[in-house]
Amino acid sequence: MAETQAPTVEPAAEAKPDVEAPAAPTKVMKSVVLTGFGGLKMLKVQQKPEVTAAGGELLVRVRACGMNFPDLMVRQGVIDTPPKTPVIMGFECSGIVEAVGENTTGFKVGDRVIGFTNYNAWAELVNINANHVFKMPDNMSFQDGAALPMNYVTAYILLFDMANLRKGQSLLVHSVGGGVGNAITQLCKTVEDVTVFGTASSNKHEAIKANVSHIFDHNVDYAQEVRKVAAEGVDIVLDCMCGDDTNKGIMLLKPMGKYLLYGSSNIVTGETKSFFSFAKSWWQVDKVNPIKLFDENKVIGGFQLRRLLFNQGQHGYVREVIEKLFKMYSAGKINPTIDSVWAFEDVSDAMQKMQDRKNVGKVLLDPTAEPKPKDVEAEKAAVSTDAESGDKQEKKEEKPVQDGK
Amino acid sequence: MAETQAPTVEPAAEAKPDVEAPAAPTKVMKSVVLTGFGGLKMLKVQQKPEVTAAGGELLVRVRACGMNFPDLMVRQGVIDTPPKTPVIMGFECSGIVEAVGENTTGFKVGDRVIGFTNYNAWAELVNINANHVFKMPDNMSFQDGAALPMNYVTAYILLFDMANLRKGQSLLVHSVGGGVGNAITQLCKTVEDVTVFGTASSNKHEAIKANVSHIFDHNVDYAQEVRKVAAEGVDIVLDCMCGDDTNKGIMLLKPMGKYLLYGSSNIVTGETKSFFSFAKSWWQVDKVNPIKLFDENKVIGGFQLRRLLFNQGQHGYVREVIEKLFKMYSAGKINPTIDSVWAFEDVSDAMQKMQDRKNVGKVLLDPTAEPKPKDVEAEKAAVSTDAESGDKQEKKEEKPVQDGK
Repeated sequence: MAETQAPTVEPAAEAKPDVEAPAAPTKVMKSVVLTGFGGLKMLKVQQKPEVTAAGGELLVRVRACGMNFPDLMVRQGVIDTPPKTPVIMGFECSGIVEAVGENTTGFKVGDRVIGFTNYNAWAELVNINANHVFKMPDNMSFQDGAALPMNYVTAYILLFDMANLRKGQSLLVHSVGGGVGNAITQLCKTVEDVTVFGTASSNKHEAIKANVSHIFDHNVDYAQEVRKVAAEGVDIVLDCMCGDDTNKGIMLLKPMGKYLLYGSSNIVTGETKSFFSFAKSWWQVDKVNPIKLFDENKVIGGFQLRRLLFNQGQHGYVREVIEKLFKMYSAGKINPTIDSVWAFEDVSDAMQKMQDRKNVGKVLLDPTAEPKPKDVEAEKAAVSTDAESGDKQEKKEEKPVQDGK
Repeated sequence: MAETQAPTVEPAAEAKPDVEAPAAPTKVMKSVVLTGFGGLKMLKVQQKPEVTAAGGELLVRVRACGMNFPDLMVRQGVIDTPPKTPVIMGFECSGIVEAVGENTTGFKVGDRVIGFTNYNAWAELVNINANHVFKMPDNMSFQDGAALPMNYVTAYILLFDMANLRKGQSLLVHSVGGGVGNAITQLCKTVEDVTVFGTASSNKHEAIKANVSHIFDHNVDYAQEVRKVAAEGVDIVLDCMCGDDTNKGIMLLKPMGKYLLYGSSNIVTGETKSFFSFAKSWWQVDKVNPIKLFDENKVIGGFQLRRLLFNQGQHGYVREVIEKLFKMYSAGKINPTIDSVWAFEDVSDAMQKMQDRKNVGKVLLDPTAEPKPKDVEAEKAAVSTDAESGDKQEKKEEKPVQDGK
């Protein structure tokens, strides 16, 4: 943590001390802005003009925002179609509908919702296409709501549409201690007699062992370790690493096995973009002849939720999945593990924790949370960060916007 | 049909006129033998010493045998691991248990069964590993039984394990008028609102149009024809052709689409092995980068039932599938279309019909059937062949073994 830098909080020209104040032409909202691609210092907390809901949109007052590995890749610029900077970051949030745009049906002011956004979620307010917004079950907290969209929809589609997980099967999951990994292991519990092999950093093994049958450090020869337990391999490999892990994963498949690539976190090796790791990850992946899959009875595929929603327009399909997940949540079958909740001002610490693979479960940002004391009490802050891990208490009170310090 | 040659029926040294006669050391059985790789003349009906059931096996008196496209590929020698010739052909049959080998449990003499064999099914008797034998439902005819194993298990696994067909989806199926195609279209009817695009020879369109939403001749630019109806492509492509059809199939997938290769019939272009078509089919298939699948939200895979059973030992999984199919059959949800039933002596005509893609549904052999009159009444025979198409009458009477003519 010591090497991380707190983002500069830049006071806006006419920042208001209270966002609940009556409307004014210059009303602003606090947001986490990526000012350019690179290290953590590219993240700034800034006051931006408040957004409004256009036709077909909802304006949502954000209560919690999810952080995902793709956020780290965006920051470094190591994604296919990087956004133009400056840009407000964030792909998911929970909150309360504050305004309903023209021709937007099915929602009303005050609805508690979760939503997918193509950036812009890490702010006090966000306007979202109503196709990407879903009313939360009454018993769902905002933190659980923000933890659900990216991770659980990805996990559900991987397991139940693409891999078609069945009773008695086995799977290998990388980063099994992270947000998607946590969602995967919980969803696996809804199917009888599933064996989960997972890779995770050694420091996480204790925390996740209850949900993972066999845990290995990713740095060991995990393929060999899996073979020691399951000589014939596994039924399903869910890979968020890419690179050489792709080849290893396909090799590890049993007959009728399914390999699914849903991330490329091997690309992120340091704080800033590494052309070496980027290129290596691509070059290392062997192309596959479909005839080889025919000869071996194997399936390979890939899944990227943001592309599905924002490039391929499959919100109807995602809505069906969300509805199934809400039912599972209400029935107590799934329950997101929250690693930690951070103020916008502490976004660098939060992101560093994820990059260091120290989180167990979901990392959230809370626009209403107070930043941790910095500099003068650096040591104390580090301690309190650890104490925050796993804290699932909802922060109920509204807080005034911080104008920086 | 005119160019086909009737196989030579070679009288065995000590052929018996009645296979039901008391045991004798030199008892023989009629069988269809591949004497070497090549054209139809490599098929001979021969008397072979009767087989017996070893430990773990069942001896089955065959009542009907299924013919499949892989039989044509075996005859030409265009498969990965060709058998040693001479070999009795055939991968599936129905019949009655005649003897139970040592340590074989779960079956008794007289059981009506179907079974998968690794060759040897096209005979009056066959010994089969009990793991690959399944008791037929009481209401299933031997002809329906022989039509079911290869085609319906393949179709079921493709649709419901690998492609995970859901309500409202669309699929493209090649050779939709053949045995697997027939099984696929019937299984699709068990799911609500499925759109089937099929390719088939023009002569079959009328016969199959009831079960196929849109039929195209395989020789037209079917990809363009599909796009005219479904601009965004299809959810599932089931491809038994391989070669350039593989590339076209993957291109035709919608987001979340699944392409599955389950045959390579493009390799068979004439009566004998064509190195040109063999090589072309392999070279034409583009290798696929898993990262491309990740970028496009696609899945590709392959399935080969014989390899699954005989090389990969997955009979437990196949048994689960067979049990589901039997339930569907008993509930009237599936009902194999039988194209035609042939005597062993007419195997060349039967195979030529399949190679010419003239069959609609399953082509069967019946060891008890009388051969059609040949030569002297060639024209009449051709007419009666057409009349046999679609005949589903079970031939009940046992017939004496033909000693040739």
